[in-house]
Amino acid sequence: MGQYSDLDRKVIKLGKMVVRMCTAAGSGHPSSALSILHLTTALMYRVMRYDPKNPWNTGADRLVLSEGHAVPAVYACYAELGGVAGRQDAPLTLTFDDCLTLRESASVLDGHPNPPQGFPFFDAATGSLGQGVSAAAGLACAARVQGSDKQIYVIVGDGESREGQIYEALDFIIDHKLTAVRVIFNANGQAQSDYVSPQQSAEALTKKLEAFGFDVKVIDGHNFDEIMPALTAPATDKPIAIVAKTVKGWGVNEFLTSNYHGKTLEESQVAAALADLDAKGAELGGDADADVAQLTTPQAREADAYAEVSAGTFEEACQYTGNDKAFAAKKMSTRKAYGVALAALGRDRRVTAMDGDVRGSTFAEYFFKKHPERFFEARIAEQNMISAGAGLAAGGTIPFVSSFAKFIVRGYDQIEMAAISEANLKISGSHAGISLAADGPSQMAITDLAFFRSMAHAKRTDGAPICRFFQPSDAISAFKLTELMANVEGMCYIRTARPDVPFIYDENEEFTVGGYKHLIDGEDLAIVTSGYMVHVAMKAAALIEERSGLRVSLIDAYSMPLATDEILQIGDDCRGQILVVEDNYAGGIVDEIAQAAAASDMGVMVHPLYLKKMPKSAKTPEDILAQVGLTAEDIAAAAQRIFDMSE
Amino acid sequence: MGQYSDLDRKVIKLGKMVVRMCTAAGSGHPSSALSILHLTTALMYRVMRYDPKNPWNTGADRLVLSEGHAVPAVYACYAELGGVAGRQDAPLTLTFDDCLTLRESASVLDGHPNPPQGFPFFDAATGSLGQGVSAAAGLACAARVQGSDKQIYVIVGDGESREGQIYEALDFIIDHKLTAVRVIFNANGQAQSDYVSPQQSAEALTKKLEAFGFDVKVIDGHNFDEIMPALTAPATDKPIAIVAKTVKGWGVNEFLTSNYHGKTLEESQVAAALADLDAKGAELGGDADADVAQLTTPQAREADAYAEVSAGTFEEACQYTGNDKAFAAKKMSTRKAYGVALAALGRDRRVTAMDGDVRGSTFAEYFFKKHPERFFEARIAEQNMISAGAGLAAGGTIPFVSSFAKFIVRGYDQIEMAAISEANLKISGSHAGISLAADGPSQMAITDLAFFRSMAHAKRTDGAPICRFFQPSDAISAFKLTELMANVEGMCYIRTARPDVPFIYDENEEFTVGGYKHLIDGEDLAIVTSGYMVHVAMKAAALIEERSGLRVSLIDAYSMPLATDEILQIGDDCRGQILVVEDNYAGGIVDEIAQAAAASDMGVMVHPLYLKKMPKSAKTPEDILAQVGLTAEDIAAAAQRIFDMSE
Repeated sequence: MGQYSDLDRKVIKLGKMVVRMCTAAGSGHPSSALSILHLTTALMYRVMRYDPKNPWNTGADRLVLSEGHAVPAVYACYAELGGVAGRQDAPLTLTFDDCLTLRESASVLDGHPNPPQGFPFFDAATGSLGQGVSAAAGLACAARVQGSDKQIYVIVGDGESREGQIYEALDFIIDHKLTAVRVIFNANGQAQSDYVSPQQSAEALTKKLEAFGFDVKVIDGHNFDEIMPALTAPATDKPIAIVAKTVKGWGVNEFLTSNYHGKTLEESQVAAALADLDAKGAELGGDADADVAQLTTPQAREADAYAEVSAGTFEEACQYTGNDKAFAAKKMSTRKAYGVALAALGRDRRVTAMDGDVRGSTFAEYFFKKHPERFFEARIAEQNMISAGAGLAAGGTIPFVSSFAKFIVRGYDQIEMAAISEANLKISGSHAGISLAADGPSQMAITDLAFFRSMAHAKRTDGAPICRFFQPSDAISAFKLTELMANVEGMCYIRTARPDVPFIYDENEEFTVGGYKHLIDGEDLAIVTSGYMVHVAMKAAALIEERSGLRVSLIDAYSMPLATDEILQIGDDCRGQILVVEDNYAGGIVDEIAQAAAASDMGVMVHPLYLKKMPKSAKTPEDILAQVGLTAEDIAAAAQRIFDMSE
Repeated sequence: MGQYSDLDRKVIKLGKMVVRMCTAAGSGHPSSALSILHLTTALMYRVMRYDPKNPWNTGADRLVLSEGHAVPAVYACYAELGGVAGRQDAPLTLTFDDCLTLRESASVLDGHPNPPQGFPFFDAATGSLGQGVSAAAGLACAARVQGSDKQIYVIVGDGESREGQIYEALDFIIDHKLTAVRVIFNANGQAQSDYVSPQQSAEALTKKLEAFGFDVKVIDGHNFDEIMPALTAPATDKPIAIVAKTVKGWGVNEFLTSNYHGKTLEESQVAAALADLDAKGAELGGDADADVAQLTTPQAREADAYAEVSAGTFEEACQYTGNDKAFAAKKMSTRKAYGVALAALGRDRRVTAMDGDVRGSTFAEYFFKKHPERFFEARIAEQNMISAGAGLAAGGTIPFVSSFAKFIVRGYDQIEMAAISEANLKISGSHAGISLAADGPSQMAITDLAFFRSMAHAKRTDGAPICRFFQPSDAISAFKLTELMANVEGMCYIRTARPDVPFIYDENEEFTVGGYKHLIDGEDLAIVTSGYMVHVAMKAAALIEERSGLRVSLIDAYSMPLATDEILQIGDDCRGQILVVEDNYAGGIVDEIAQAAAASDMGVMVHPLYLKKMPKSAKTPEDILAQVGLTAEDIAAAAQRIFDMSE
């Protein structure tokens, strides 16, 4: 009997539940779960400092399960420990038999780790692979900012170690010396379609990890004598990575006969599988139901007193960041105003920031200079930045992550996963639309409205939109909307542009979620637009009045979801005609309003004027607007066609 | 005088043009371009087998410039060589002075490599970083399929070597022994915001490349005595990677004073820069205008005779893939029918395929089994798969790439870059929508309609949509639409679902770009839907008639862009009421129709019924439809509300 025979015996009990719960669910990944079961048992019964009765303890060590499909292993351990799930205002103590509700619509035990659906033991929703190491790194950044010594454990599959994001995360961990993260690779040698590539063998992973700068410990992942020292070894100046050699389907003979990835046993096969495990258990002896947990309950971090995060006045923030002259000249790009707001917000220690090697262009540079201890440069690796940002949010900070809006596209899958996590993540995409001009389409975000709008119309568990979208037209609105983002719970995206533009708003103007601004009050046509195009539309409005004597209403639709009822009313007051002008592809503001118009019987007509061709480089914003047909003249001509039609 | 002093002298001439063209453009990346100028000179004047007068030669070696912002170096070389640009039916011989049109709206010299805008020397649009190695790998796969010995050179920046996709591509190159690819890392030590991380130093890159399995040659990137042997060394069984140590802003003193990333010199600084280079040139002596090119013109690959790619009949293809029983039972999932079509299409040697380690689930497995020599397993690395797929397309094959639709989101930035390249890429996203059920939201594609629809409404240079979107409802339509994709020039996305569903269509039914099917002809309400939801809506139609005696029209809107005029007409004939039912978030079919309705004066009302909450796991498709309010009962209730309202 080794010193860990009690844990060995517990694994048998847990393994039986893994088999049973997956068969009861009719789907799941029992063979993957069995391969990590010794690892989760070691972590959850011995190594992690946490309280299964209080998953909301902010001082607790954390586990990120990057290979989310193996989650039955965690559910089995947690339920056997009588862990608490559910919402904090309606906690739910799990029993071992609750595992049999796996994947049911009413169960908190989702198919993959899903914290907001009732399993707060996890911080990060996982299941789309290769994202867990980044989330763990973000949690470690948050812990560092907070002065916490919490440890973050992350289990990664060998198959998913093909995802490039893993390597982004490894570089990030080394760059920032995040020794609080312990990365555990589960090298069971099998992926879904086949054995893993030799490029993901335990040996290859070890070589790569060493080349990336890790202290690598190669262990037998089913032997606690090797697992425990590797999990508890103090990190030196090098972060530790563990390559655990494991067996997919450990303990169940049927699973060893072929590739059982993602397959459960039939009811008729369960008895034999349980017998396999029982036979192993009988060899081990001991009491499977013994309480073998030896856990330390950590001290919770003192909660920050709730207060709004304030950026102060724009004038003061401009002084703070050395932008007095631009303030006086009343001209600044929206991306720069974002940076001004970010630096000013950063005076609140809850605020953190990341950027993808373009901080001089996104103006996250201002934050970096003022609050370097809370800034985490992510370099040119946007996927890791988004997932690490979600980790920073889960760790209790208010993270703002920024890059060119085009490069944020690189992280759309990660953004969707952050949305499932209901991460309080703030995303800034700069140089959006086409006004960037000279660099050409590889640097232009044109699909982003469609993507983010789709998430603005679906609800989180608390009824809020999954993502809120803001597109400021001037520096004042950019500043105020950035501040608003910090104070709205949940994911937000702000879309800023490259060119310097004159201020439109007064410093006291207020901006709200779902709001819009009625900039010009006319009666012949309502023009709705946003962002950089507001400036072009203002010129168009002047042209129209000059030529036809007709007066348009002009609306700055800076928020999504949008108050479409009110905008339709304005359209109704403008001869029932709305023209929507956008520097993005289909799927943006025009659809927002058209969907509302077509579902109403008001009879308001909505006319689109958006980007309908792939742009190329042009020297100036004016040149590119001419290239794609979105100049003030183009807008005026579109308006004239509507006037002619509605005569 | 070394053996390459003539090339050294040429670099001086080219460097002067790099400085001048960037200043003329007012933007660009002269310092990056100068760091790779020796490399591009070696490649374009000596190493590559190609004909500057005929960039369309299909036998030529290829260059992919992953760090696209350094493109002025390539433009300078190509123009000095009198290379041909433009379209094949309107070729344009560049002069050296044409470089001064860099980034103009009318210029073929876009800000980043942009083949369809008139620079076919390149295969791949680049500029969003980290994608070039994958594109090169795809070109090498195409060359292998075609029996061509063409070499593919790719230049990668050290800063962009932080992108995880680079590591996905390296693994892929080793897995498939793509020794035709020579990966050249430009280690100039500077990125945009700062010096590169020590993780991307020449030394660190060398260690990583060795760990990944490359034969690594570290050279001075400004010394032809080291460059030429490294570029021309024959590859052994290991692919060769070159780490070229370079100087950002080489040859121009001003560039060496600080970080000039992405900055051009002022007009007033140009003279000094040219003088710096001239001084170096004077040391070298020789004639900068000498014709130093020593190029081999390759034999073009024999063109495939044009013929439609045929999948044959569905019945025969089912036999071919062992699906006789499913055919007889008239029940099959759309994802499986995709696989059946793909295997059948694969009998045409132009067709290639890739999959992201889920080929058993996407049914790309059928292609793999029948045509393994044209199947390239990409493993769990979707970004590389999409970009390599674009490379396979640029190499003249017709590539189909597949994964779960959710994991395709991982490659949206790469898809946008493939769109800029106008790549003939066919993308299959399986398990889309929510009918996957049990695995939960991390495996569900719900934003994909919004994203792809946005690109379906913008035009390529040839006037076709940037991307066409298909969503089949049954196996017949999935089979036919997959065949259609092979025969439509340009990017297409097909969205398939997990569940087995009964056949709706007859084997002889025809499907077209922009088409739809009027499945039931009623007069009281038009229900428009697509994909899996067609089956649910059919049940709803029966329920509605049973309960109210009212008859609905049912439309399967399987294509995007959609023939909205005709659908509005059907709605007009159905009391002017349309109900759109979708298992995705906002931004899909409802917006397609609402945009058309709101721009018309027909007064047809469009009512949405789509996914408005974040789903979680549920055991069955029925359970999840109930969870989110999209059952047949929910549809019938929505229809009843419309009837009540329009009484």
